[in-house]
Amino acid sequence: MANHIGERVRLTVFGQSHAPAIGAVIEGLPPGLRVDWDGVQSWLDRRAPGRNALSTSRREADIPRVLSGLNASGETCGAPLAVMIENTDARSSDYNSIIENRVPRPGHADYPAWAKYGAAHDPRGGGMFSGRLTAPLVIAGAVAAQVLSRDHGVATGVRIAECAGIGDRPRKVDPVDRAILAKLAGQAFPVLDDSVGERMRSAILEASAARDSVGGVVEAYAVGVPPGWGEPMFGGLENRIAQVVFGVPAVRGIAFGAGDGSGFAAAGLRGSGHNDAFYLDDDGRVRTRTNRHGGILGGISTGMPIVFEAAFKPTPTIGIRQDTVELNRNAPATLNGSGRHDPCVAQRAAPVVEAALAFALLDASLVGKY
Amino acid sequence: MANHIGERVRLTVFGQSHAPAIGAVIEGLPPGLRVDWDGVQSWLDRRAPGRNALSTSRREADIPRVLSGLNASGETCGAPLAVMIENTDARSSDYNSIIENRVPRPGHADYPAWAKYGAAHDPRGGGMFSGRLTAPLVIAGAVAAQVLSRDHGVATGVRIAECAGIGDRPRKVDPVDRAILAKLAGQAFPVLDDSVGERMRSAILEASAARDSVGGVVEAYAVGVPPGWGEPMFGGLENRIAQVVFGVPAVRGIAFGAGDGSGFAAAGLRGSGHNDAFYLDDDGRVRTRTNRHGGILGGISTGMPIVFEAAFKPTPTIGIRQDTVELNRNAPATLNGSGRHDPCVAQRAAPVVEAALAFALLDASLVGKY
Amino acid sequence: MANHIGERVRLTVFGQSHAPAIGAVIEGLPPGLRVDWDGVQSWLDRRAPGRNALSTSRREADIPRVLSGLNASGETCGAPLAVMIENTDARSSDYNSIIENRVPRPGHADYPAWAKYGAAHDPRGGGMFSGRLTAPLVIAGAVAAQVLSRDHGVATGVRIAECAGIGDRPRKVDPVDRAILAKLAGQAFPVLDDSVGERMRSAILEASAARDSVGGVVEAYAVGVPPGWGEPMFGGLENRIAQVVFGVPAVRGIAFGAGDGSGFAAAGLRGSGHNDAFYLDDDGRVRTRTNRHGGILGGISTGMPIVFEAAFKPTPTIGIRQDTVELNRNAPATLNGSGRHDPCVAQRAAPVVEAALAFALLDASLVGKY
Amino acid sequence: MANHIGERVRLTVFGQSHAPAIGAVIEGLPPGLRVDWDGVQSWLDRRAPGRNALSTSRREADIPRVLSGLNASGETCGAPLAVMIENTDARSSDYNSIIENRVPRPGHADYPAWAKYGAAHDPRGGGMFSGRLTAPLVIAGAVAAQVLSRDHGVATGVRIAECAGIGDRPRKVDPVDRAILAKLAGQAFPVLDDSVGERMRSAILEASAARDSVGGVVEAYAVGVPPGWGEPMFGGLENRIAQVVFGVPAVRGIAFGAGDGSGFAAAGLRGSGHNDAFYLDDDGRVRTRTNRHGGILGGISTGMPIVFEAAFKPTPTIGIRQDTVELNRNAPATLNGSGRHDPCVAQRAAPVVEAALAFALLDASLVGKY
Repeated sequence: MANHIGERVRLTVFGQSHAPAIGAVIEGLPPGLRVDWDGVQSWLDRRAPGRNALSTSRREADIPRVLSGLNASGETCGAPLAVMIENTDARSSDYNSIIENRVPRPGHADYPAWAKYGAAHDPRGGGMFSGRLTAPLVIAGAVAAQVLSRDHGVATGVRIAECAGIGDRPRKVDPVDRAILAKLAGQAFPVLDDSVGERMRSAILEASAARDSVGGVVEAYAVGVPPGWGEPMFGGLENRIAQVVFGVPAVRGIAFGAGDGSGFAAAGLRGSGHNDAFYLDDDGRVRTRTNRHGGILGGISTGMPIVFEAAFKPTPTIGIRQDTVELNRNAPATLNGSGRHDPCVAQRAAPVVEAALAFALLDASLVGKY
Repeated sequence: MANHIGERVRLTVFGQSHAPAIGAVIEGLPPGLRVDWDGVQSWLDRRAPGRNALSTSRREADIPRVLSGLNASGETCGAPLAVMIENTDARSSDYNSIIENRVPRPGHADYPAWAKYGAAHDPRGGGMFSGRLTAPLVIAGAVAAQVLSRDHGVATGVRIAECAGIGDRPRKVDPVDRAILAKLAGQAFPVLDDSVGERMRSAILEASAARDSVGGVVEAYAVGVPPGWGEPMFGGLENRIAQVVFGVPAVRGIAFGAGDGSGFAAAGLRGSGHNDAFYLDDDGRVRTRTNRHGGILGGISTGMPIVFEAAFKPTPTIGIRQDTVELNRNAPATLNGSGRHDPCVAQRAAPVVEAALAFALLDASLVGKY
Repeated sequence: MANHIGERVRLTVFGQSHAPAIGAVIEGLPPGLRVDWDGVQSWLDRRAPGRNALSTSRREADIPRVLSGLNASGETCGAPLAVMIENTDARSSDYNSIIENRVPRPGHADYPAWAKYGAAHDPRGGGMFSGRLTAPLVIAGAVAAQVLSRDHGVATGVRIAECAGIGDRPRKVDPVDRAILAKLAGQAFPVLDDSVGERMRSAILEASAARDSVGGVVEAYAVGVPPGWGEPMFGGLENRIAQVVFGVPAVRGIAFGAGDGSGFAAAGLRGSGHNDAFYLDDDGRVRTRTNRHGGILGGISTGMPIVFEAAFKPTPTIGIRQDTVELNRNAPATLNGSGRHDPCVAQRAAPVVEAALAFALLDASLVGKY
Repeated sequence: MANHIGERVRLTVFGQSHAPAIGAVIEGLPPGLRVDWDGVQSWLDRRAPGRNALSTSRREADIPRVLSGLNASGETCGAPLAVMIENTDARSSDYNSIIENRVPRPGHADYPAWAKYGAAHDPRGGGMFSGRLTAPLVIAGAVAAQVLSRDHGVATGVRIAECAGIGDRPRKVDPVDRAILAKLAGQAFPVLDDSVGERMRSAILEASAARDSVGGVVEAYAVGVPPGWGEPMFGGLENRIAQVVFGVPAVRGIAFGAGDGSGFAAAGLRGSGHNDAFYLDDDGRVRTRTNRHGGILGGISTGMPIVFEAAFKPTPTIGIRQDTVELNRNAPATLNGSGRHDPCVAQRAAPVVEAALAFALLDASLVGKY
């Protein structure tokens, strides 16, 4: 079943784009946590920056309403934390012709959803496949990040490492540290090289003017994870993180590691060039000078920063004429535009990927020694 | 818990490199399947080609012994299929100094395992982190492939798309078809361009002579998957495949899609260049002419071939001097060689990745419509 | 994690007695179901009959609000069905002294909750241990019953088989048939012998007048279940039903089977007196003349009616002086009354047990052949 | 899927009566445990006391062979503990006529297994429904008991509380203490009143002489469980214990609590007569003088002894003529005897129920605070 994830902390996401509400039920949070709701809201705001030049997303703010899970003092109490966001800006008229004609948009889930659910599928606004469904994950991730920070001193971060074919510099950040995370945390469009960020934004506007869209790569970090989180084989941190990250629409790939020899580039190195040698730092802790392994060996954290990147395809919703088919008539068709479009998914995706990482890490932290 | 995977078909893997045995318990297989054990053996043989120039793996053959799950006619009967492989070539003496001194090998799970399990960890031959533990997954995948073929006409395949920095041609196969799978199926070192395969093997030998190792990229395929397998969000085919594939040691990344604009390359395209237009083929089936989406949209199969690639880092076990630490004494140390080494993991990994794909697909096929 | 249940249909329950809301998220329902919400409401009304002589439960009606899971036509669409009930009558003042003093009520979860969650526990109105949390299960069960009826012709029913030590007649119903279920369906206080029902109600009033409470036994039925649902060992129908039923507060035991030699009484019979002989009915179907086995053998349905009983202890909340302790001061204490009390849980529990059965059966029906 | 159980400790059972082997894979055991295999063997021997007057079970001893999960020192190492027992006494000839003719034995799983698995089912010796499959559970439970004892000082025990309609005395043990457990531990046929045990054995022999069988009630105990294990709702200790216990063949009911007002008898009491008042013992610990609640309130342990009873129907395999049907010919049939029979299941079941309790408790102990 597709809508829940997690072993010790369990997130269940509900909702469709045009249902009365979307929301999250989070089981297994430590009791006694006073959630910083302003902090949660700031993550939500990063995901839905409002209608600006770079985004044509809904105008409505994502206002979470807590349904349960807090005691009279506002702390988590051991019961599931249930939060909903009402859908107040659901304009289904935009989608009427698509609903009526069953003309699947290229690159969207329309066609496989029709194949799987038939006429019962709710296609309004993308239904359960809408990017809007990432908001509950962001809530869960923001809360998870608060627990990780409070209980373990773990800090997470994210940047847009590539957008519209333009790469942020340095290309691969190694070492990652808290200063870098602090710099990224303050940005709506998180990059390390501000001039590159400007070029990215220009490229997005250019694509948007052409009624087209661009893709991007998001890189996420966690600093302060102690050695020993995660498990061998199918319970590895990579498995856990990937299972959440591929729950984010438009993700095409994920790769682990920091620096030039990480991820897919690792395949081209020799062992002598890829292995990160161990040393003892001034505090006697085991460290590696390079972090090509991205903080994970054998599925288990090493104490080095956890680093991975996720590739997002360009948003499939574009305003350009495309060939498709009419499913009801089994005939060729064309679409001249496929709805409101978001020219670059990477900006909105950044807090979602950070949330995925935070959630997966909190879950792994609670699995324990065995 | 790390050792099981699957929702409708459940694989539980047990064993360590130097335990009496390794094995698999597979729950949920359709009853009435007459397993082709020769076929299973051929997959196992691809995983462990024996001691040759390209591999220094154990000499022992992997001979599966069925413990349960078959009726008197040799068919699956509804009870779990339990299979074990005895470890007959477990020479723990190779590892004694490492055990005694607790000197973690760079790039291995030694250090995080020590951090997690402490003195109880079984480090002999890599223990539960050994690549040997992929044999049970291969058994499960080979059986799954037989069910997929019998019940759905699905065919799977795999190739070494890159090795030692040398890429097979064509770089990205699109379209993939049964003829290509048939060509690959006959090869111990599966590539499309035989001359490139020769160059790869030379590069492996060269690295081996230098007591070093090389990495590679494995690309896997499934043809004949009908539209509608997989689920939205965390139950997507990508999530399911990734969760199994990251259970294979040394995987650093996974990316979906076929052709030049797939995977991480998709991030650099515009939507108009990435979307695969729909059309109706001569049989009236919905198809796409290109397959950048790799047969999956919204987590659900589209009926096009499923294509993904997995990046493997070079085997960390090398014969070259490396810096490390001595955990018991908390002191710097060096290793002059870290055990028997396998200069290229990609060849052995190919059937494992194909098995991961087959297992994940069989599981998804049984999830049903909702 | 305590708040979800089900393998193919997954119910997640959220809420506390005095949280803003309680609710259910139901994953895995068949798409295309037009839920009969009047039918759901009638199940909810049976669970909360309002303030009458037999019940001092809250006055508020349980009005479910659908948050997601339906398409524009009001049918299930494949996305999780999320439903909430707002808590409008949460008078926490009733519980202040208990909260402040940490004086656990005998027979309640107060003490173990304090031991487990510490000061973070939400004790208002029983918090997450409140009987109010059975409403989401009733919603899930009522919807499940609609699917079972539509897709399989299965009918469920329930009666109060014993209350305040008074047993309904016949003591053990065998055979159970649709006529009996129809008779029970029309009753707010479901019994077969109306005069016994009168006596039960008198006994409840008598206990209530004494500020005391009574227990009872609820018996549940399912007719029309085909042979082959359920699984061996831990996946048996008994395991699945018991796991849901013990999620209902105050359940002390569960026993399977119909007729005098069923349940715990079976332990006193000989095999020759307990085995139900097989025969072929007029339609050539395999049946048993008696149904001591309660429709389940080896965990799997036989096609005979499924019958079980669940024992409920008397509600622990009573108005009589009781000895207890004051946890904060670690001193003896007394309670002269422990809040609003419900003199007989059996009436309210009846639809909950029926819901538990319907939910467990729908889940098992979707597990398939293996 | 039927063959695995547990949330933090996961048991997967494999095997059929006449497969080459049966076995258990246990994930999640604490690393560093030196298993007392003699202790495990003594539990296995209690389950299979050999061919004597009271049992016609197989002659073979159950000799477990460890396949994996131990380090070089024989301690659990974090990898799954896999253990198998080879089936050396599988005489399938006994069952040939049943196999050939498809004549289901009354009271057995033969008929629903045929309905579910069809011709693929392995009926030899009961296949996967055989009581023999309880041996792997006993191994898991015996190991769990060792962890519970070592880490928490928890002691478990079991007795035959009723057999052939004859009840052990005292009828309901309250309070249960370590002295009682010690007395029971030494007995092959565990009862408190030895003269009653004699009468039980006579009754079994009498039934056996009549080629018939008897049922019984087994009562299990755990002393030393601290307050706070278990969870609300579906994660309660009752839910967890019941889910394992109903995995044991022939169980018809389970009820919790100690003393006369426990289990189904609780339904006949008033709240004032059922609530167990709290007091502080000499060490300042919260206790109850009576233990009708059986050590569990709200699904969570209270620190009082955990007590429950499980009812076993008489073994359905008897030597007396019974009516049945011939499935292949869809015709009435009779059986004059249905194989080797075990006149009383209660003796063999006692260690299995104790194992179920120990396993469920260890699992719950590892779930943690939330």
